Amino acid sequence: MTSHPLDPATVKAMVDEHLAGFFRSTRAELDPIDPFIAELNAEIEDFVLGGGKRVRPLFAWAGYVGAVTSPGADPAGAEEDPSAVIEAVSALELIQACALIHDDIIDFSDTRRGYPTMHRRIESAHRARGWSGDGERFGTSVAILAGDLALAWADDILARSSISPAALSRAWTAWAPMRSEVIAGQILDISIEAARDERPESARRTILLKTAAYTIERPLHFGAAIGGADDRLIAAYRRFGQLVGTAFQLRDDLLGVFGDPQVTGKPAGDDLREGKRTELLAHALVHLDATDPAAAARLRRGIGSATSDDEIAELSGIIAATPAVAETEQAIAELTRSGIEVLSAAELSPAVTGVLVDLAHAATDRRH
Amino acid sequence: MTSHPLDPATVKAMVDEHLAGFFRSTRAELDPIDPFIAELNAEIEDFVLGGGKRVRPLFAWAGYVGAVTSPGADPAGAEEDPSAVIEAVSALELIQACALIHDDIIDFSDTRRGYPTMHRRIESAHRARGWSGDGERFGTSVAILAGDLALAWADDILARSSISPAALSRAWTAWAPMRSEVIAGQILDISIEAARDERPESARRTILLKTAAYTIERPLHFGAAIGGADDRLIAAYRRFGQLVGTAFQLRDDLLGVFGDPQVTGKPAGDDLREGKRTELLAHALVHLDATDPAAAARLRRGIGSATSDDEIAELSGIIAATPAVAETEQAIAELTRSGIEVLSAAELSPAVTGVLVDLAHAATDRRH
Repeated sequence: MTSHPLDPATVKAMVDEHLAGFFRSTRAELDPIDPFIAELNAEIEDFVLGGGKRVRPLFAWAGYVGAVTSPGADPAGAEEDPSAVIEAVSALELIQACALIHDDIIDFSDTRRGYPTMHRRIESAHRARGWSGDGERFGTSVAILAGDLALAWADDILARSSISPAALSRAWTAWAPMRSEVIAGQILDISIEAARDERPESARRTILLKTAAYTIERPLHFGAAIGGADDRLIAAYRRFGQLVGTAFQLRDDLLGVFGDPQVTGKPAGDDLREGKRTELLAHALVHLDATDPAAAARLRRGIGSATSDDEIAELSGIIAATPAVAETEQAIAELTRSGIEVLSAAELSPAVTGVLVDLAHAATDRRH
Repeated sequence: MTSHPLDPATVKAMVDEHLAGFFRSTRAELDPIDPFIAELNAEIEDFVLGGGKRVRPLFAWAGYVGAVTSPGADPAGAEEDPSAVIEAVSALELIQACALIHDDIIDFSDTRRGYPTMHRRIESAHRARGWSGDGERFGTSVAILAGDLALAWADDILARSSISPAALSRAWTAWAPMRSEVIAGQILDISIEAARDERPESARRTILLKTAAYTIERPLHFGAAIGGADDRLIAAYRRFGQLVGTAFQLRDDLLGVFGDPQVTGKPAGDDLREGKRTELLAHALVHLDATDPAAAARLRRGIGSATSDDEIAELSGIIAATPAVAETEQAIAELTRSGIEVLSAAELSPAVTGVLVDLAHAATDRRH
């Protein structure tokens, strides 16, 4: 087997092995503090290892492999121990754990990946122990701190990984903006909703920070930096990530309104129920304001407040009747094609280009 | 002026200068994203620079100076640029910002250092902008994310400081456990209250993690690690930190019940109003259960529920009538004396010993 495998299942298994090892050593240190701390650590471990496709580590690893096989890279990047690089990129999963735990508190979500969210798990532990006080408040308080632990641990995994000090220093040039961007994107998401800001360009700015930068652009940049990539490759990766990452979110917007519950595993029109301010919705409202103000008003009233299947079907019907759906499909296709074009010009090995093109199609053609 | 000043005012000014520089460069990158992000960044900057005594950076810096002037240290530690070390230790203030912002959410606190807490500031911004939705929920949601930003930035300041890669790697051996410990201590604090765990030893475990490790033990260890201290000095620092840090919290326990509002700036009996499960309270209850069950029941009923000045005076009178107060005073004296003894055996320069002894007395003799 090559030391730089690109097959997603193999990479995922390597990432999971490192994460399992991290939890083993961290829990050996922290579990003895107290039985409840140990129970919480077990919940965090279960949350991280129990789900997720390891998309961000996959992009970061592909970014690294692409860098070390590209003509312009610093040869030092290829001297990193592949296992150390996998260790470093696995840190992305702990950022994701913090993001999900804190987002679920903010959104009052009860389930995540089919299981109770972290604050609900902790609320259950409170009840099971017959503890006093408000269990819901306890769940939220401890889940805020559980997310903090995950965020601190993400940085610990990276900082204490066995990549070289020079690689660590390069890695942080992508790692620092990535963390600020995803948090800023989440703040932007909440604030444009509070501001009733319906402009498509505001939704797009949120997408670029919260999805594109965080899911593709910066993970690729992060892996590339570890691999000593030159500025040209980093620029290509980042542009690819912005384009394909945006297409990925637009696909999510469509699935959130029109996805098949049998395939997505979520209720039909989930985004409409939750009142998500997507770019798809923003475009639909622009069209409706110009052509059918009554339908625009109905859509505005129903978003986030409609609960019955009939109402949800009515709202998705209103959106379906606008050109926003076809325009979004076209945007996805164009963004994905442009992203792949940028990549093709980047002098990457065919194997790396192949895996990134596959990941791009998987992210933008998916049905769930 | 020496390159290793130990005067607290001088060190504080150097730390503040680095923090101000950090905010300048970070805000130059992030403020352009969005006006509300810029406003939030300004609030975080104001929160960090507007208050605090920089106690943790002071201990860390003293730990560093002690290490590089001690006979057993790795000579490489003394070659660090002092300004880079100040930069690294200033990162502690951003951990503190996260801890305070998230604790204030958890405790539903309205004020901190005489100003509105972060979630209240954000709630006010929501109102001032005339935004829609529940302002209190908005304040809490965005403050969770503001704390996350501070936590990520703490690690960024350390990781991107100009200390050598070897020093950074040593520093992380204290930095990683410190962050886990303070978060675990906060979880323990919440969970022993929910469990109605009144054992003094449970209160002491919380003190060791939440106060002693976080405020003195690990900052000293962190500075010492940057300075290349040997295991013996690190062990002495840590022991000193555990002892004096515990005494510091016990003093806080006494001030929280008996402090003069004119001097502390907080209402009389603030801990009783908030229902804090301190070690002082735990000892008082142990005494009262054995000698005056009616008073014990009165105290249990009143803690966290009493609001009038008369009730608070009654509760503090009940505690004052137990031997717990004199025992706590004695414990403070003994812990402080033992801590200073440990230090005296550690072959530190008289200047470093002097400043640490001064800090120990200031922490344990204070009246506010």
